[in-house]
Amino acid sequence: MTYKNFPMVSKVIFGRGSFNQLEEIIAPKRNGRHAPFIYYVDDVFKGNHWLTSRITLSYKDKIIYVPTKEEPKTSQIDTLVEDIILEFSEKPSGIIGIGGGIVMDIAKAVSLMLTNKGEAKDYQGWDLIKNPAIYHVGIPTISGTGAEVSRTTILTGPERKLGINSDYTPFDQVILDPELTKDVPKDQWFYTGMDCFIHCIESLNGTYLNAFSQSYGEKALDMCKDIFLNDTLDTETAQDQLMMASWHGGMSIAYSQVGVAHALSYGLSYLLGIKHGIGNCIVFDHLDEYYPEGVKLFKDMKSKHGIELPKGICEDLDEHQFDVMIDVALSLEPLWENALGKKWQKIMTRDKAKELYQKM
Amino acid sequence: MTYKNFPMVSKVIFGRGSFNQLEEIIAPKRNGRHAPFIYYVDDVFKGNHWLTSRITLSYKDKIIYVPTKEEPKTSQIDTLVEDIILEFSEKPSGIIGIGGGIVMDIAKAVSLMLTNKGEAKDYQGWDLIKNPAIYHVGIPTISGTGAEVSRTTILTGPERKLGINSDYTPFDQVILDPELTKDVPKDQWFYTGMDCFIHCIESLNGTYLNAFSQSYGEKALDMCKDIFLNDTLDTETAQDQLMMASWHGGMSIAYSQVGVAHALSYGLSYLLGIKHGIGNCIVFDHLDEYYPEGVKLFKDMKSKHGIELPKGICEDLDEHQFDVMIDVALSLEPLWENALGKKWQKIMTRDKAKELYQKM
Repeated sequence: MTYKNFPMVSKVIFGRGSFNQLEEIIAPKRNGRHAPFIYYVDDVFKGNHWLTSRITLSYKDKIIYVPTKEEPKTSQIDTLVEDIILEFSEKPSGIIGIGGGIVMDIAKAVSLMLTNKGEAKDYQGWDLIKNPAIYHVGIPTISGTGAEVSRTTILTGPERKLGINSDYTPFDQVILDPELTKDVPKDQWFYTGMDCFIHCIESLNGTYLNAFSQSYGEKALDMCKDIFLNDTLDTETAQDQLMMASWHGGMSIAYSQVGVAHALSYGLSYLLGIKHGIGNCIVFDHLDEYYPEGVKLFKDMKSKHGIELPKGICEDLDEHQFDVMIDVALSLEPLWENALGKKWQKIMTRDKAKELYQKM
Repeated sequence: MTYKNFPMVSKVIFGRGSFNQLEEIIAPKRNGRHAPFIYYVDDVFKGNHWLTSRITLSYKDKIIYVPTKEEPKTSQIDTLVEDIILEFSEKPSGIIGIGGGIVMDIAKAVSLMLTNKGEAKDYQGWDLIKNPAIYHVGIPTISGTGAEVSRTTILTGPERKLGINSDYTPFDQVILDPELTKDVPKDQWFYTGMDCFIHCIESLNGTYLNAFSQSYGEKALDMCKDIFLNDTLDTETAQDQLMMASWHGGMSIAYSQVGVAHALSYGLSYLLGIKHGIGNCIVFDHLDEYYPEGVKLFKDMKSKHGIELPKGICEDLDEHQFDVMIDVALSLEPLWENALGKKWQKIMTRDKAKELYQKM
């Protein structure tokens, strides 16, 4: 038996307003005036002075606003990396991602691809990255994805939606400032929060689970129940708690894996461009056969917050399209093995996967 | 408001038997044949081939057995560092601590003092360390202290018992192998486990608490209750869980502090040489005024496991001795401020501290 040696985020700061300490934190990492800090910022913050006025640009530092209507693509990463190489004479001092899971993943992927030759798609998989990344900082502005703490960056490539999983992927620095999540719209708050909830359910019900992942998953699950089902938390406390739930939910994956919902959701995302949070919700709603208690809780949460999920999204798909989704989903072997055991292929047949997609 | 930027352990591996991966993990860190790995090993493992046969010594690598009857002293660290400097022509490739809190703290302190000039006592306090430590690895063989994850190493110096708290103190690598705890004697299991329990109570009831520390503390506390009060866990699961409880309990201190029990226990330890685990228990038993629910739970646990604590240990002390203990305890301002608030000096007077010591 060999166990994974898990890399943790090197430094983490937590607190309301801790975003104000960004400049002081990154200053010692500057490698001279020609090596800029590049900020990838979710474009919902464009013109938001409350946030952007606190980003200090020196020398050649640059803010790049990132549209987040679509999940990040490997080709997009390649373009962003090329832009940096063409514009600056030296490698950046650091890459800073300010946003949700999409922006976190872009910051991680760009920092990796600045020091590893070739195209991002070549590194989709496990432990293919050879060189340490550029110093990179994650600052989540919405809670739930766990991207701030994970050793992956999920990208849609020409052939598959799959992460660049490596020891060099985790952030060198994370700033957890729950105040940054104060303006998240309710629907998005729910979908992204459910990403955390679903991580926990998939991790805790998976065959890979050990005491390490279990302890993180249980805590994150308890916090999700408090946040989404009980009415005892005030607004700020709920923001604080959800940011920590996301963190612990992400840590829970360290020795575990996600499962059925994530695998099928990747298929939806690949073919239809459905974003991860809502995609997970659409899928999870139909997984009572695999996660009966989790799905019951999910339906309670959905109803409590008046969330209506899209229906019939697979209604008009043809056979070829189903095949594409099923190919993407079933290629994610570790997820299925975690969810259903070593003989998962006998349980999750192509017919079964199609039957599930047809319900959505 | 300024928040602490907390350094985390860089890499962690968890699993029964993961100790077998030690050689493979540290091999890439070797800086040549003249730069040895130094293993500090709790001397209870002397002659224990089950453990020691799995330590591979190459070139000038060396095992140093550490007696653990007494808490580590600053002078002991200085001697250990001098021994290394005299014996080897190059700085070690790494320092590996295999044991309980004492050995963890020795490994951390030696790795720091090999790269920072002067004596260990000069660095007791907060953020006095200037240079990064030698690569250092922590492998706990008993659970509860949280030393495997903390940014301190507690030492008894000529003037005080106080930690070297710094960003360079945390381990670069931790190996969490619960199997290594299988032969811990019951009394020691209880005392050290209660160190974790008391961390949680002090952290969760402290004025410094935030959502980060709270989430870790709550989880560790829940796990302690399961382990020490319920009968539902089998032996191996209880070992696994206690190792994780210790980890989370240590993380809970990140944004918090310990409190009354630790402060008074440091006094006992400084004057009477009482070890930390049992010292905490002796003190905590009398703290119902400060931690009523925690002390009730503690008494239930003590009774359930048939633990008899020493009594009357302060009976024969003279005024000067009380003064020494009180000086050590009351010098730990952050602990008192966390426990009792900014006006703690009005609550914890010298008379009050003496009254508490007299009960022990």
